[in-house]
Amino acid sequence: MKKWAALPIGALLVFLLLAAPRSFAAEGMWPLSNLPAAALQKRFGFTPSAKWIEHVQLASVRLAGGCSGSFVSADGLVLSNHHCAVDCLEGLSRPGRNLMGESFYAATREDELKCPAMEVEQLVRRTDVTGAVNRATQSKSGAAYAAARRAATSRLESACVAGHPKRWRCEVVALYHGGQDWLYKYRRYQDVRLVFVPSQSTSFFGGYPDNFNFPRYDFDVSILRVYVDGKPAHTPDYFPMSTTGPKAGELVFTSGNPGATERDDTIAQLQALRYPIFPVLLQVFSHFQGLLEGFSAQSASNARIARGDLFFIDNAIKSFDGQLQALNDRQAFARKAKEEAALRAKVAADPALAGKVGDAWTGIAAAQRRYNAMFLPYLMLVPQGGQGFYSRLYRMAFGIVLGAYERTLPDAQRFAEYRSANLPLLEQQLFSPAPVYRNYDRVRLTSSLTMLRDLMGTDAPIVRTLFATASPAEVAGHAVGGTKLADVAVRKTLWAGGQKAVADSSDPMIALAREVLPYYLEVRKTYDDEVKAPIEANTTKIAQARFALYGTSISPDATFTERLSYGVVKGWKKHGQSVGPFTYVSGLYAHARSYAPLQLSAAWLAAKSRLNPATPMNFVSTNDIVGGNSGSPVIDRDGRLVGLIFDGNLPSLGGAFWYDGKLNRAVSVDSAIIVEALKNVYHANALVKELTGRG
Amino acid sequence: MKKWAALPIGALLVFLLLAAPRSFAAEGMWPLSNLPAAALQKRFGFTPSAKWIEHVQLASVRLAGGCSGSFVSADGLVLSNHHCAVDCLEGLSRPGRNLMGESFYAATREDELKCPAMEVEQLVRRTDVTGAVNRATQSKSGAAYAAARRAATSRLESACVAGHPKRWRCEVVALYHGGQDWLYKYRRYQDVRLVFVPSQSTSFFGGYPDNFNFPRYDFDVSILRVYVDGKPAHTPDYFPMSTTGPKAGELVFTSGNPGATERDDTIAQLQALRYPIFPVLLQVFSHFQGLLEGFSAQSASNARIARGDLFFIDNAIKSFDGQLQALNDRQAFARKAKEEAALRAKVAADPALAGKVGDAWTGIAAAQRRYNAMFLPYLMLVPQGGQGFYSRLYRMAFGIVLGAYERTLPDAQRFAEYRSANLPLLEQQLFSPAPVYRNYDRVRLTSSLTMLRDLMGTDAPIVRTLFATASPAEVAGHAVGGTKLADVAVRKTLWAGGQKAVADSSDPMIALAREVLPYYLEVRKTYDDEVKAPIEANTTKIAQARFALYGTSISPDATFTERLSYGVVKGWKKHGQSVGPFTYVSGLYAHARSYAPLQLSAAWLAAKSRLNPATPMNFVSTNDIVGGNSGSPVIDRDGRLVGLIFDGNLPSLGGAFWYDGKLNRAVSVDSAIIVEALKNVYHANALVKELTGRG
Repeated sequence: MKKWAALPIGALLVFLLLAAPRSFAAEGMWPLSNLPAAALQKRFGFTPSAKWIEHVQLASVRLAGGCSGSFVSADGLVLSNHHCAVDCLEGLSRPGRNLMGESFYAATREDELKCPAMEVEQLVRRTDVTGAVNRATQSKSGAAYAAARRAATSRLESACVAGHPKRWRCEVVALYHGGQDWLYKYRRYQDVRLVFVPSQSTSFFGGYPDNFNFPRYDFDVSILRVYVDGKPAHTPDYFPMSTTGPKAGELVFTSGNPGATERDDTIAQLQALRYPIFPVLLQVFSHFQGLLEGFSAQSASNARIARGDLFFIDNAIKSFDGQLQALNDRQAFARKAKEEAALRAKVAADPALAGKVGDAWTGIAAAQRRYNAMFLPYLMLVPQGGQGFYSRLYRMAFGIVLGAYERTLPDAQRFAEYRSANLPLLEQQLFSPAPVYRNYDRVRLTSSLTMLRDLMGTDAPIVRTLFATASPAEVAGHAVGGTKLADVAVRKTLWAGGQKAVADSSDPMIALAREVLPYYLEVRKTYDDEVKAPIEANTTKIAQARFALYGTSISPDATFTERLSYGVVKGWKKHGQSVGPFTYVSGLYAHARSYAPLQLSAAWLAAKSRLNPATPMNFVSTNDIVGGNSGSPVIDRDGRLVGLIFDGNLPSLGGAFWYDGKLNRAVSVDSAIIVEALKNVYHANALVKELTGRG
Repeated sequence: MKKWAALPIGALLVFLLLAAPRSFAAEGMWPLSNLPAAALQKRFGFTPSAKWIEHVQLASVRLAGGCSGSFVSADGLVLSNHHCAVDCLEGLSRPGRNLMGESFYAATREDELKCPAMEVEQLVRRTDVTGAVNRATQSKSGAAYAAARRAATSRLESACVAGHPKRWRCEVVALYHGGQDWLYKYRRYQDVRLVFVPSQSTSFFGGYPDNFNFPRYDFDVSILRVYVDGKPAHTPDYFPMSTTGPKAGELVFTSGNPGATERDDTIAQLQALRYPIFPVLLQVFSHFQGLLEGFSAQSASNARIARGDLFFIDNAIKSFDGQLQALNDRQAFARKAKEEAALRAKVAADPALAGKVGDAWTGIAAAQRRYNAMFLPYLMLVPQGGQGFYSRLYRMAFGIVLGAYERTLPDAQRFAEYRSANLPLLEQQLFSPAPVYRNYDRVRLTSSLTMLRDLMGTDAPIVRTLFATASPAEVAGHAVGGTKLADVAVRKTLWAGGQKAVADSSDPMIALAREVLPYYLEVRKTYDDEVKAPIEANTTKIAQARFALYGTSISPDATFTERLSYGVVKGWKKHGQSVGPFTYVSGLYAHARSYAPLQLSAAWLAAKSRLNPATPMNFVSTNDIVGGNSGSPVIDRDGRLVGLIFDGNLPSLGGAFWYDGKLNRAVSVDSAIIVEALKNVYHANALVKELTGRG
């Protein structure tokens, strides 16, 4: 399982609440405001104190790119996954310094390398703003609802940032799909430096075939450090690292930011995921997978350039496959339908409730049909700059063009990511000095524009406009060949120049983005007003009815915000065979071969005699996690870090829709091997001392 | 719509019968043994005579690669589509002679070019063998059923070929899914020469975006000539070409070989198509589409090499998309389910019938579950040599290895394509002198082996065997780099040498194929015995019950054998807008642009003033067709050729499952433009004279 925001599915889905209460063991990604204290006390004799909760909150962090992490020293060390640092590693790679292919360790602070564009965020305050948001939106629908909600959340966020957007990030989070609204305030860290990574062959040992599988032997670790004013940040709340890892059966917690789940989707929404959404996503991503394999086959340097993207595409495909398979489990789906029917019956049986909820399910189904009908244009134009425009140079251009337009509007009318309070993150990405590969961009833009044309058809107005006088290959070649946006200074000047600079620019990539802008605004506005708004409004109605029936006894769908899940270290039965909870160093060496993806790095081969074969490598636990949890700390009840989440097993992919305690497992790197490998493979003694307090 | 056998879906599907009678106008792909004479007489006042039927049969041909065609002169001229001749065109292309990029016309017979591997087949005799086959298989099931059927059909076919396999091709065809069995005897023509083709930019004007769409302006024409003993074949049965084409509303017939329909599939089978079959096929083909685009982006010569394959992949994806969309039409699907329920109720209400049919639907559902579970290994290993082995060199090697093994068995135990009577076709393909592109093969084999490994998983025995000591890239590089199979003489020697030559060979591609063989045999045997046999046996039971209820008042599912469909030249309503039945030369020029796929060839640009703008280009008709019909003649009641089928509209893709006379349309090249363009664009006066009898 890989970081969440890199995948479009999060951006494609609309959050929804609602099903009957579920009682599987360990189910739930709990907001810190609503931990299942009674269940924990009953089952484990443990009740987290307010102080424990605050400490966990402050020691946990979010990586803005779509991952989780945690502070692991008082001097700003952050532990996360290797795969969460890929953008940084690629951005720092140069001819002669291949940070994807090789390991890296900064023995001194002077050696730490600044990531071109990475943001670490620490949640410092949570405020319930349900009342304020509800007052603003009540009895509104459609575009009016969307505008009112946008205005209200924008006001709250601006006030929270209080004029310091580089220091604070604030966002209103709809838990229970608007059943509750919370204002979350984050401390923003943009100076993030690389301290340690293994090579990708070590972090992703076993490669694609082993991804989402277990037994596993991955050392999917990255260690970063956040700086403030050029000095390591002081971070008194952190998780000290256990040198032994957890025991089988032990209670463990994960504290992280699960990206998105659809457990409370209505049946109409799940049906849409079954078709057309996942089949189309699989088609688009499989096309790009083949494209990047074809590109990589040309040369070793091409392979290096495409490696990170291919990794995420492979991962997305495997994840979509697993989710589509889960949705086609007819028994599970029928159970889901029964739950919905039961809830609807309960609502119908209570006239007061029924009056409030109205025909919310029908409203959602209608909005979903609207979405299905516009899904292709939406997919091609919107998520991540649009799948029809698969080019970093294009996405920079579009960010500049859309940003110039949005900044002419008052905050309350802008898309969330362009509000003043959120610009620091955008600017960091836009001005990243990471290298640009022009030929790679040309190949990808040609192929994605061709796909856009082919999937949308020649009658679509945007297709007529873009290809009025040239083919996709010509459009891409002209724009990529002629653009000057590879130069950071040019991007900065255009960004600073706003609307006028954009209008005056003769850069062909800016010109392409200008052509796209009106189509983008139209499809996004249609989506916001005719899909998102009615779904949110109707879902909130159901959520409120649901509170009346069940309270907060279930956890809300994931929202890429801080959640705690509990579980125990435990194996499962795969096709009737028991799978134990741990793998060991001995298994890593036994599983190794002389070729990728089973090839050990020279460092690990050399270290074999220095490593204890009985040291645990990876373990599984029943914690309920999902994409976005990558990099989450696994802690014991005393707040010691015993593991590092990096994946889930295959059945956990169905966790997007339902949790099955018998099968779903989270997969972690054991802290014991982190300590031992840092010491005996990488000779990172200063780092070990900082992590464990011992040399 | 493109030729059928090039797509794996035909090979993947199992033929089935059965639904309630359907009465849409023009529905039906009728075997010549069972034409809807009453309907034709009633609606059009036309009853085809026995002589008319025999003439149509003998003037129509099948292209072994998966297309249809017809004789259009007494000297062996065959008319088909450009896209049906792609293999020939690529096989004849050389540096300096790009038959895909340029048009070709052989002004004299000496200039006609022999296709490296093409077979034209003329159906000369049809014999009902239902009784013989039923006697052989009755009261058998599973592997015993499969063996008995294989033995019986093999005996019938051998006797029919009568020791002249190079002259005759015989096959037992199960109409109504075994409700009837027919022995079809074909005259085989393997000396097929190229007389005329336009450039692909002309034949496929509008490209992918216009594929399966209308209005259309395609000149998708190829003209071939069959030879016997080095001389043009004498073909007294042929369709003379009309210089005017058909009129709106006119009754027209198509005579061709529709590949496969699933109109009589049970609901369990259609559900399997909905998931996993089509989504997985889309995933696999989209991957290859991206791969070939990435390969093509490297150079113009790469683009030329991949062009034909990309064309078929694009077409397959569009076809799968349309079929998956049709299957997700909930109303149509519910109607289908209702039909099945009605039939089952009728059967249940008749104890004698119920006794014969037993629980056939349950048996089919169980076999289908078995298929779903083995679908990935089957797809990776079997259709077209296996999608996991996407390499011409590999497929040659595997053909040699499997062929050597099969030829040690008696005919009755062999797979159908390896029976003595069928070897001429295999040998023609295996010994084709068409050039081999080694780097292209390496890139494709690497990527497809990677896909095989990733989709089947590292626990699969074949994955463990193939990649025991090397990665997919290494396996592919070694086999492609070291093989000598690009040399036709080497292939001939190995083929002639049989088992011993294969066992002794040190060719690395042969070695790879030897490793695969046992896995192939296992998965194919499992498929034959546990999927195909029970589905056939149960389907035949339902078919027989169905005859008892409805007789032959409906047409059987398509089987890539000769069928006649009738219809009228007629437009339809697309999203509420009327689409007229014809396009004209004027529209072609209006639709043209300066870039692909809307770029006119120099010849057409130059000819503009010589062409009548009012000449019809393409037309649509209500004829019920499907992939495999490509190249079918459209004839009027007097047997004049008025058009040439080359596509269907988008709604016609649902024609795999149901025919909707309001929407489904066949798309043809009008004979008027064929004559006019041959004369005024290509100056092919001798050819025009041969086609029309006039200079």
